Amino acid sequence: MKMADIAVLGHGVVGSGVLEVLLSHGDSITRRAKEAIRVRYVLDLREFPELPYAEVFTKDFDRILQDPEVRIVVECMGGLEPAFTYAKACLSNGKSFVTSNKELVAARGAELLALAQKNNLNFLFEASVGGGIPIIRPISQCLAANEVSEIAGILNGTTNFILTKMIRERMAFADALSLAQQLGYAERDPSADVEGADACRKICILASLAFGSHVYPEDVHTEGITQITLEDVAYADAWGGVVKLIGEVKMLDSGKLSIQVAPMFISRESQLANVDDVFNGILVRGDATGDVVFYGKGAGKLPTASAVVADVIDCVKHLKARKYLFWEDAKPDRVEPYGTVPEDFFVRLQGPESSDQAFAQARTRLPGAARIIRRDEAPGEVGLSVGGISENQLRMALDQLSGEGLRVLNRVKISDF
Amino acid sequence: MKMADIAVLGHGVVGSGVLEVLLSHGDSITRRAKEAIRVRYVLDLREFPELPYAEVFTKDFDRILQDPEVRIVVECMGGLEPAFTYAKACLSNGKSFVTSNKELVAARGAELLALAQKNNLNFLFEASVGGGIPIIRPISQCLAANEVSEIAGILNGTTNFILTKMIRERMAFADALSLAQQLGYAERDPSADVEGADACRKICILASLAFGSHVYPEDVHTEGITQITLEDVAYADAWGGVVKLIGEVKMLDSGKLSIQVAPMFISRESQLANVDDVFNGILVRGDATGDVVFYGKGAGKLPTASAVVADVIDCVKHLKARKYLFWEDAKPDRVEPYGTVPEDFFVRLQGPESSDQAFAQARTRLPGAARIIRRDEAPGEVGLSVGGISENQLRMALDQLSGEGLRVLNRVKISDF
Repeated sequence: MKMADIAVLGHGVVGSGVLEVLLSHGDSITRRAKEAIRVRYVLDLREFPELPYAEVFTKDFDRILQDPEVRIVVECMGGLEPAFTYAKACLSNGKSFVTSNKELVAARGAELLALAQKNNLNFLFEASVGGGIPIIRPISQCLAANEVSEIAGILNGTTNFILTKMIRERMAFADALSLAQQLGYAERDPSADVEGADACRKICILASLAFGSHVYPEDVHTEGITQITLEDVAYADAWGGVVKLIGEVKMLDSGKLSIQVAPMFISRESQLANVDDVFNGILVRGDATGDVVFYGKGAGKLPTASAVVADVIDCVKHLKARKYLFWEDAKPDRVEPYGTVPEDFFVRLQGPESSDQAFAQARTRLPGAARIIRRDEAPGEVGLSVGGISENQLRMALDQLSGEGLRVLNRVKISDF
Repeated sequence: MKMADIAVLGHGVVGSGVLEVLLSHGDSITRRAKEAIRVRYVLDLREFPELPYAEVFTKDFDRILQDPEVRIVVECMGGLEPAFTYAKACLSNGKSFVTSNKELVAARGAELLALAQKNNLNFLFEASVGGGIPIIRPISQCLAANEVSEIAGILNGTTNFILTKMIRERMAFADALSLAQQLGYAERDPSADVEGADACRKICILASLAFGSHVYPEDVHTEGITQITLEDVAYADAWGGVVKLIGEVKMLDSGKLSIQVAPMFISRESQLANVDDVFNGILVRGDATGDVVFYGKGAGKLPTASAVVADVIDCVKHLKARKYLFWEDAKPDRVEPYGTVPEDFFVRLQGPESSDQAFAQARTRLPGAARIIRRDEAPGEVGLSVGGISENQLRMALDQLSGEGLRVLNRVKISDF
């Protein structure tokens, strides 16, 4: 039996999970890879003397880099550096690179893919989006005979858990966040999750893959869920849906991409409406397939590790023949400037007098607005759905209404899927 | 640019769709396959002189077989013969074989996979299950680092459409079937759909793939939906769910497979409960990934054709290196005999007197049964849920009750996912 030697960078949650999956599923992995996979090094600054594989730990990346037996390096450290430096070094030295690191792929994917292509190596990252849900491969391979027009997903389990608690148990945002932290779903500094950066990285990766050129996080309008209140949740319910944090990219007729991360009202009929708790769901709209939805655990030690290991198996099988997985670097003007594309919005306003009067006043600036009435509407509060208006136009109208004595409490997008 | 010549067998719905997808997506297909794909022959007994590619039609399979330029043959004829004869001939003559034909794969998959392996060719069939939903590849590749313990799916769009009409619009089975026929979702002879044979073939393919040895349709207990009435649908609603036709395979602790196709009550909380109309949904339970669900259009010209074309692209890229996709022939005693595994059931009975009396009488033989009360319960009718009982035991109890004057109106399984 041939032997494929690999190195694992980082022995945190995902890295230790990779070792666990490799050890517990050795036989079936060997059968599928047609070679036994042996972990020759684990890079970590900490020591784990109690582990059965304690002797493979090293603190010296250069040992891994200089070892010609190591043909595949698996990175589970997270963060941009030193992951990026290590990735470049590996791909420049004959080693394929597998990563679960969405920050790395979203920031440097095009560059690393080009380097891998140049050196006839693989750079794979199935685990970077959707954890254990197969999504990178299906988009790249199975949907090859499709033009993808849109991808929309619930891409962050932490915020989805928080919103689910707000929706189902009427728990306030701060309480739901604190519960998520207690349960280990949210970090002590939850900003990357609740402010949308994590979902943004993932929609960037999916957009780059589906549309063939890199979309960088800084070009993506990103809103988190920190402004969502129980009142908004109640209005979503009255409207016929739920509030979810959605990462979305659409190909416009102009050939530009409209891409954003934002909380949205989504209809109860949508296939994403029942994606609850820490689960993720990703909808891919193709011209031939129609809507295809992928659902599962978007994070967690073993789901993520099993996706990493699937990539490793693929690398072993394709040590000579590269997998097709590629996108170009960003094209200028590929992303439509935010705020210009017509969308639908929910708007919540507070007037000085009755709700009816607030509604009549709002209609002077938003003539097409329809009223949504929630149970226990506060005096003077009014909820509106406004269709087919750009963010820029809406902001102008809301500024005018503000000047005319109507306070803008919130505005949330309404999805069209 | 290199050119890959293929032949398409059958110019029906799927076959013509394959031509349409190849023609309309030529550029992106060429980019991904790294070769242009040219259809050199279309085999059909009919003539299509009005088509732009009329000159590639032939009625002579041997011309295709003898042409050394044709390295990939795509079969979209359906039915076991002559598809099986053609597949064997192609795989024995250096041609990879791609098919959308579930009957062929369910009946002869192991044999054709072995032949393909022997001759270092590919035998691919992504389109045979779930139409445009990527499912064969994700199970075979992405879940490689998992032990799959269970697969359950809504695998037949026709029956799902009929059940959706019964559930949402209280349409009787016969009326819903007739509507499905008018809309082209059901064939004039609908038996393969409504009696479960189509779903059975698909769960056989998924079971064979996930558990590594062929499961033949004749070893699978198969019930259709023809016995499902609006009363059953109402009881499912009262119980908290819906009736769906489920194909299901589970690995038992004994290492045997429990596999069946049957209508089941599934809870509204299940991720399959909202898979409606002609859509399919497939749940794959793995030890590392947890539950992963795939959802989309399970049939139709373009979704199915796009899955076929994705396989063709994969063949072109792997003309030298075979894809890993394999299972052994059936193992004796691999499938647990039907009727022995404990399940949960809904039972509907009719007594000669009041419903309360019927319930009391039923409990003498089914002591653990709980009552489900639907709106507009008929006089003497009683609905029960019975937990943890094998079909054989249940049948005995129902036979006794029958002899004691309680008429058995129906019994439907209750799923546990």
